Amino acid sequence: MPITDDEIFRAHEGGKLSVELRSPIDTQRDLSIAYTPGVAQVSRAIHAEPELVDKYTWTERLVAVVSDGTAVLGLGNIGPRASLPVMEGKAALFRTFAGLNSIPLVLDTTDPDQIVQTLINLRPSFGAVNLEDISAPRCFEIERRVIEALDCPVMHDDQHGTAIVVLAALKGAAQFLKRDLASLKVVMSGAGAAGVACAEILKAAGIDDIVVLDSRGIIHSGRTDMVEYKNKLAAWSNPRGLTGGIAEALDGADVFIGVSAGTVNEEHIATMADDAIVFAMSNPDPEVHPDVAAKYATIVATGRSDFPNQINNVLAFPGVFAGALDAGARRITEGMKLAAADAILSVVGDDLAADKIVPSPLDPRVAAAVAKAVAAAAHADGVTG
Amino acid sequence: MPITDDEIFRAHEGGKLSVELRSPIDTQRDLSIAYTPGVAQVSRAIHAEPELVDKYTWTERLVAVVSDGTAVLGLGNIGPRASLPVMEGKAALFRTFAGLNSIPLVLDTTDPDQIVQTLINLRPSFGAVNLEDISAPRCFEIERRVIEALDCPVMHDDQHGTAIVVLAALKGAAQFLKRDLASLKVVMSGAGAAGVACAEILKAAGIDDIVVLDSRGIIHSGRTDMVEYKNKLAAWSNPRGLTGGIAEALDGADVFIGVSAGTVNEEHIATMADDAIVFAMSNPDPEVHPDVAAKYATIVATGRSDFPNQINNVLAFPGVFAGALDAGARRITEGMKLAAADAILSVVGDDLAADKIVPSPLDPRVAAAVAKAVAAAAHADGVTG
Repeated sequence: MPITDDEIFRAHEGGKLSVELRSPIDTQRDLSIAYTPGVAQVSRAIHAEPELVDKYTWTERLVAVVSDGTAVLGLGNIGPRASLPVMEGKAALFRTFAGLNSIPLVLDTTDPDQIVQTLINLRPSFGAVNLEDISAPRCFEIERRVIEALDCPVMHDDQHGTAIVVLAALKGAAQFLKRDLASLKVVMSGAGAAGVACAEILKAAGIDDIVVLDSRGIIHSGRTDMVEYKNKLAAWSNPRGLTGGIAEALDGADVFIGVSAGTVNEEHIATMADDAIVFAMSNPDPEVHPDVAAKYATIVATGRSDFPNQINNVLAFPGVFAGALDAGARRITEGMKLAAADAILSVVGDDLAADKIVPSPLDPRVAAAVAKAVAAAAHADGVTG
Repeated sequence: MPITDDEIFRAHEGGKLSVELRSPIDTQRDLSIAYTPGVAQVSRAIHAEPELVDKYTWTERLVAVVSDGTAVLGLGNIGPRASLPVMEGKAALFRTFAGLNSIPLVLDTTDPDQIVQTLINLRPSFGAVNLEDISAPRCFEIERRVIEALDCPVMHDDQHGTAIVVLAALKGAAQFLKRDLASLKVVMSGAGAAGVACAEILKAAGIDDIVVLDSRGIIHSGRTDMVEYKNKLAAWSNPRGLTGGIAEALDGADVFIGVSAGTVNEEHIATMADDAIVFAMSNPDPEVHPDVAAKYATIVATGRSDFPNQINNVLAFPGVFAGALDAGARRITEGMKLAAADAILSVVGDDLAADKIVPSPLDPRVAAAVAKAVAAAAHADGVTG
C-alpha cells in the first residue's frame, strides 16, 4: 500500500522524539537520589575528577545532530525550522540502530564563525557532533573548523556517511564482478559535499582514475571558473586530463556515481565499459532510471528503498558514531571511515549478488559490525583516550 | 533506610535521561515515513507555513535547561560538566511532573554575551528556556537579555521558581494563621538570585515591609558598599529604614525567610513576633534547625524532604513551563508567576495545617493545577499567540 500524505503527517504530530527517564522518580527517595540532595554527591565527584562526566551523565553517548538547514535533502535551503523533522529523523535512527542518545540542534545562523562558536560553547553538552545538511562549500570549512575546535568525534554525514556507503557498495560490486577495485575508471556526477567526499574516499581506497563533474562539466585543471575546493579536486583527480561533459567522461568508464540532482541520458550510459556499475543516488529521482541503467550495467544501485541495492547513509552513521564513542575517540580518522566501509560489506557475506552489494538499511547487524570495526580502527590510529 | 553514596552513584551511571522514539522504526515503511523520502513532505510544509513547526516537531514542548555551572545548588562555581547531573535531574523532573521534553544545555563560557548569542543561535531548537544555577549578579543581566532576545518563555528558576513557591507557602501560612498577608513584616536573609526574586514577588503580592540582608547586614539606602542591583533593592525595600544586622531585622518580625548559606542564632529567632513564620531553606543545613525554630515559631518550613513543609522549586517550574507552552506564551509575566503561587496553594485545600502549608513535591495534582492557572494568566495578560 502506498504511503499517504495523511499517514506521514500523522506520524509527525508532536514530533518523533521524546526525552525519557532511565529510572522513574516515583518516591521521595527517588527524588532525593536523582535530584537534591543526592545529586550533589555526583556533581562534587565530577568537579574533583572531570573524566567522571563520561560515566555519570548521558553526554558520553549523546550525538548532537547539528544543522543550519541550508541544504536539506533535495529541498535545498529551507532553513533551520523546516529542517527539524529531518534532524529528528536522524536522531531517531541513532537510537534505533546504535542505541545512542541524540538531540537535534538547529541553528538560526548560517555564519560559519557563529556556528563554530556555538558548538564550542556547547561542548560539554554532548559527546559527538553529526553535522547535517549544511551547504557546500561552507560545509567543508565548517567541518574542518569544528573538528579543530572540539576534542570529540565530528562528522558531516552528507559528506562522509555517503562516502563510506558508496565505498562499501563499490567494493561489493567489484568483489561480485571479480574486478580489481583500484583499476576501476570512476565517473562522479556532482561536486558538492557528497561528491567531493566520495571522490576522496575512493582515492584513499586506492582508485586512481576518478573523474568528477559539476554542472558545467568535467573538473580539470584547465578550468578558470571554479571555487577553491574544486581547484583542489582538479589537482589530484582526472589523471587522463579529460575535458568536456558527461559524454566524454562516461565513454569507456566502469563506474557511474550520481550524487547530484541532475540526470544522465541513456545514450551516455550505453557507452560505458562492459560489466558497468551505475549508482544513481539522486533522491527521489535517480539520475537514470534503474531499469534503463540495467540495460547496460551489470550492477545498478540507487538511494531508493523500492529498488535493490539501496545506498543509504543509515548503513554508516549510527555505527561510525557508536564505534567512535565506544573507543573514546577524539576524532574520526580516514582509517575509521575505511574500516566502516569494510564492515558494512562484511555483513553481506555469502549473500553477495548483483542485487545485493550492500546490506538492507534495516539489517540490525550492520551498526554493530561498523561500531566494532570503527572502534578498532580508532585504537589502531591512536586517537583514543 | 538512609541513602548510600553507592546507591546514588549507581543511579547516575550512564546518565539519567534517554532520547526515545515516539513510534518505533521497524519496517521499511516506518523508515520511509520517519526519514527519507516521507519526511520531506513535512519539511516542505513547515517551509511553506512556518508555524507548523509547533505541530510537527518536538520543540513546542521542549524546555532547554541552560546553565554555565557558576552557582550550582550549594556547590558554587563547579563548571558546566559537574553541573550536568543537576541539569539532567531538572530535565527528568520536567518529564515526570509535566510531561515535557527537556534537554540540558551546559555552556563552556561564563560570558553573558556568549551565553545570550548561543541561545539566539539555537532558538529554533527549543520551545522555552529554563536558566539554571547561574551566579548573581550575572543571572539578572543574562535573564533580562535572553527574555528580550527570544520570543518564548524564559525563566531563571533559581530566582522565580523559588519565589513562586515561597509566596505559595507564605500565603498558606498566613491563611492558616488567619493573618493578612500584606501586613506581615518579612525578613529575607540572602540577597542573591533567590533573595531578590523572593523579595520582588512578595512585594508584587502586596507585602510592603520587607527587609533584606546580605552577608554585611541589612540592605538600606545609606550603604555605600553595594553593587547596582542591591542599590535598587535598597530603594524600594526596608520602609522602616532599619540598619544593622539580623538582630535588628528580626526583632518583632513576623516572617524569617532564609535563602543564604548562612545561619541564624536561636536568640534572634526568639525575638520575633508571636505566631512567627520561619522558612529556613538553606540546603542541606537550614539557617536554623527546624526543631529550634519551632520553639518560637508557629509555622516552620525548610528545603528538606525529611521535615514537614518542604519548599521545593519542583512545585513550580514544571507547571509554569507547561502552562506557558500550552498557552503559546511569548514570555512569562508577573501575573503568571502570581497565578502559579495561588495554584500551588489551592492543591493543599482543606488539608491546610501548620505542618501542611504547601503540597508534597510528589503530589501529581500540583503541576496540572499550576499549568492551568499559568495558561489562563498568560491569556489574561495578552502574551499568547
